[in-house]
Amino acid sequence: MRYIPGALALGAALVLGSLATTAQAADTPAQTFRSGGLYAPTELVMTVGQGETRETATVERAVTLSCTPRATGSHPNPQAACAQLRSLSGDFTAVTGATTQRVCTKEWDPIVVTADGVWQGRRVSYTYTFANSCTMMDGQGSVFRF
Amino acid sequence: MRYIPGALALGAALVLGSLATTAQAADTPAQTFRSGGLYAPTELVMTVGQGETRETATVERAVTLSCTPRATGSHPNPQAACAQLRSLSGDFTAVTGATTQRVCTKEWDPIVVTADGVWQGRRVSYTYTFANSCTMMDGQGSVFRF
Repeated sequence: MRYIPGALALGAALVLGSLATTAQAADTPAQTFRSGGLYAPTELVMTVGQGETRETATVERAVTLSCTPRATGSHPNPQAACAQLRSLSGDFTAVTGATTQRVCTKEWDPIVVTADGVWQGRRVSYTYTFANSCTMMDGQGSVFRF
Repeated sequence: MRYIPGALALGAALVLGSLATTAQAADTPAQTFRSGGLYAPTELVMTVGQGETRETATVERAVTLSCTPRATGSHPNPQAACAQLRSLSGDFTAVTGATTQRVCTKEWDPIVVTADGVWQGRRVSYTYTFANSCTMMDGQGSVFRF
């Protein structure tokens, strides 16, 4: 009989979910059942800027990326960005650490990329500095290509 | 004649913008003229979680919000959220600091809201802790109502 509490809870959740949806028409929004709460959220904002650090770089471009329930956002290719992040289990260091196939000059003209938000419910705050735009070409992956 | 350099720069930007768009078909993306570069980006990710601090709270919901060139994102009402932020010049403390009209119990069941990303080109990282869901009702505004 231990399955019954679970079934009851699910039933209650469905009922409350409907109530919450109805209540949203009033001024108090649905607090608990946004998108059904059936998956951990993945919602990110990424930036690219000229400079050495997150604190000092001038933000030049910024995009949002959502990966659940579907890939979307102001990112120019959310499908590819979410696919790359999924394949790397959300490890941004693996994105920017891609082995460089290019021959780049060693000039120091740094570009900072950042990612903030939530990956599958886990808070993310990532910063990486590329020495110049050439070395960024591989390390930007699909995630930071915007 | 001081307007001429500006006009030339704009002309150059438009020409380079077209070139960049064309180049995007190859594997090197447009780096400089994303969305024309004619406005400072506003791209945010907001979260709501149970807990006392950003570091310890469990993220329960997260949404993205873009305000330029138009209000969009996974936020349930991006138009209202962007309108509120614009009316407050992007001051998140003015959102969460709204005067409470409600009578709330003083129970401590804290909820943390966060906002990260870029407001009109300026980097944002904001955290606020509400004592309980009642006190959050006013302070969430349109921005944190999701």
